[in-house]
Amino acid sequence: MASQETNGGCSVLTVGSFALDNVKTPLGEVVDALGGAAVYSAVAASFFSPAMIVAVAGEDFPPEHLKFLEDRRIDIKGVQIVPGKSFRWWGSYEYDLNQAHTLRTELNVFSDFHPVVPESYRDAQYVFLANIDPDLQLEVLDQLHNPKLVVCDTMNFWIEGKRDSVIKVLERSDISFMNDAEARQLCGTSSLVKAAETIRSFGPSVAIIKKGEHGALMFTECTHFAAPAYPLAEVKDPTGAGDSFAGGFIGYLAHTDELSERNLRKATVYGSALASFNVEDFSLERMRRLTQREISDRYEEFKRISYFEETEMFDHDHVVIRRG
Amino acid sequence: MASQETNGGCSVLTVGSFALDNVKTPLGEVVDALGGAAVYSAVAASFFSPAMIVAVAGEDFPPEHLKFLEDRRIDIKGVQIVPGKSFRWWGSYEYDLNQAHTLRTELNVFSDFHPVVPESYRDAQYVFLANIDPDLQLEVLDQLHNPKLVVCDTMNFWIEGKRDSVIKVLERSDISFMNDAEARQLCGTSSLVKAAETIRSFGPSVAIIKKGEHGALMFTECTHFAAPAYPLAEVKDPTGAGDSFAGGFIGYLAHTDELSERNLRKATVYGSALASFNVEDFSLERMRRLTQREISDRYEEFKRISYFEETEMFDHDHVVIRRG
Repeated sequence: MASQETNGGCSVLTVGSFALDNVKTPLGEVVDALGGAAVYSAVAASFFSPAMIVAVAGEDFPPEHLKFLEDRRIDIKGVQIVPGKSFRWWGSYEYDLNQAHTLRTELNVFSDFHPVVPESYRDAQYVFLANIDPDLQLEVLDQLHNPKLVVCDTMNFWIEGKRDSVIKVLERSDISFMNDAEARQLCGTSSLVKAAETIRSFGPSVAIIKKGEHGALMFTECTHFAAPAYPLAEVKDPTGAGDSFAGGFIGYLAHTDELSERNLRKATVYGSALASFNVEDFSLERMRRLTQREISDRYEEFKRISYFEETEMFDHDHVVIRRG
Repeated sequence: MASQETNGGCSVLTVGSFALDNVKTPLGEVVDALGGAAVYSAVAASFFSPAMIVAVAGEDFPPEHLKFLEDRRIDIKGVQIVPGKSFRWWGSYEYDLNQAHTLRTELNVFSDFHPVVPESYRDAQYVFLANIDPDLQLEVLDQLHNPKLVVCDTMNFWIEGKRDSVIKVLERSDISFMNDAEARQLCGTSSLVKAAETIRSFGPSVAIIKKGEHGALMFTECTHFAAPAYPLAEVKDPTGAGDSFAGGFIGYLAHTDELSERNLRKATVYGSALASFNVEDFSLERMRRLTQREISDRYEEFKRISYFEETEMFDHDHVVIRRG
C-alpha cells in the first residue's frame, strides 16, 4: 500500500532532464510547461519515497518549478543551475496518442552537461537513470558507491546513435525500461519475448517493456507478467507517461525495499497507476493534485480489471535480483 | 475448465465464411489453405461444445476439409455446396503482424449466398454471427426461434459500406466483438472506453474489443476486464486469430451455460488461449493438433502472467446478460 509516511524505506536517486515543454495534443496545448524525465520520474517516486535529483537547468528555469519540487520534499541540491537557456522540447500528438512527434529540440545547457553527484547522494540504494545520453548515465554510475538497484531507461535516438554505450549501461543495470518500439529496434526482432531475452542477456535481471495504452510486460528469469493499462475515457497529454511509470515503480520498490517477484509485480502496477493519472492532464498538472487515496483506489481498480479466477500461488517470494 | 466431454452444455451455431486462403507472412506462405471465419470459429468452439455451421462453399472446396470438420463432430448440414468457385482471400503480413494487408478478394459463390438455417438448428441457444455481410447476419437472426445469446463480429469494410445494417445487427446482439480500429471507426472516437460505451448504447450488453498482441478489453454495465494476450516468441500467421478468439469464447459459454461476469471473464481468457495457439502455425494447422490438456495448461499460464495480488471478490455472480 502507498503510505503517507515515506520515511520508512530507502530514497530514490533520479538522473535525467529538466525541460520546458511545448506540447500540442487533440485536447489542447501548453507552452514552456514544466517537463523532463527527471522531473516526471522524481515527482512520481516522491509519492512513495524520498527522492533526489541530478540534472541541469538554465538560469531561465522558473523558480516556482524548483519550489514545487522542494515542496514535495524532493532534494534538488544535485540540480545545477547554469548560465544559458534550459533544455526545450516541442512535440505533438495526433489522433493516435501512442506516438509522439518531435517537432524541435533545443539542447541548450544540456549540451555541455556533465552530471556531478553530490557527496550526500553517493550512497543511494535505488537509482533511476532516466532517458539521457547513455555516456552521462555511465558517468553517474561511476560516482555511486554501491547501489542496491539500478533501473535504466533510454530512447530510439541513443539506440541509433550510441548503441555501444546503451549496452554498457544495460550491463550495469538490474532492470531496464524500454517501450516496445525501442526494444524491437535494439534487438532487431518483432517478437517482444525474444527482445526481452536479448535485453536480459546484456545484463538486466528484469526487462520491462512499456506498451503505452496497452500496459506493460515484465520479464524475469522464469516468468513474465502482463500488467494491464488503466482504460481511460480521455487522455489529454501522454508526455511523461513512461517516466511517471518508472518513477512510481522505483519509488514503490524503494519504499518497500523488497526485490521479490511479487513486489516487482506490485511495483509495476503502482507505476502503471501513476502513469494513468499523469496522462489525464498536461505537464505535471494531474500529479500536482494527486492524493495517496487516489493512488490506492486506482491500484484496487487494477486488481479488479485484471481478475478472472483465483490463482494458486507460485514462488512469488523468490528474489529476482541479486547483486554481489 | 475445458473438458473432454462436450455434451454437457449447449451447442454453438456459427454463421460466416468458408474460404481458401493465400497467406504470406515473414515466416512462410500457404496457398489455397483452409480458412474462413466460420471455420476458425466453429473449430475453436468445438473444443468446448458441439458446433453447427451455416455457410457456403463452391464445388472446388476440398472434401478433406469437410471431413476434418466432421471428424471434430461439427455439424455441417447447414453448409451449402453450390456450383462455382469457393470464396478466396489473398493476404500478407509484414514485420508488424498486427496488420493484415488484403491483396485480393474473390467473392465467387459468396456473392449470391443467402443463408438457410436448417430446421434442426433453429432452436440454437448460442449463436455466433462471424464476419459476413450484416444483411446476411440479419437474415440468419430472422430464422432463429429464441436464442439465449447472440454474439456478433464485423469488419471495417461493412462499417464503411453498410453502417446502418451493422447497427441493426448490434441492436439484436448481446455481445459484440470488434478490434480496436473497427471500434474507433464505428464510433468516431480514439478512446476505447468511449467507443465501448457507444457500442453498448446500440444494443449489446457487453462490448469486447480485441487488440491483437495486446489482448482484449471486455466492457459490461459497471465493469471492464483487461485480458492479457499470451506473449509468444514467434507468430507464424495471425489469420483467424479473432475468429478463434470468438469461437473459443462462445464455445466455453455454451459449454458452461452461465452468463455471469465471472464466467464471461473466464470465457474471454479461454478465447485468448485459443487465439494464441492458432497464430502459432498457418491456417488451422495448430488447432488440428491442439489438445484439451494444452488449453488447460495455457489457461493456467494466463492466470500466472496476470496475477499480482489477491483481490477481494466483487459481485462476479451478477448475470450481465438478460433477455426477455
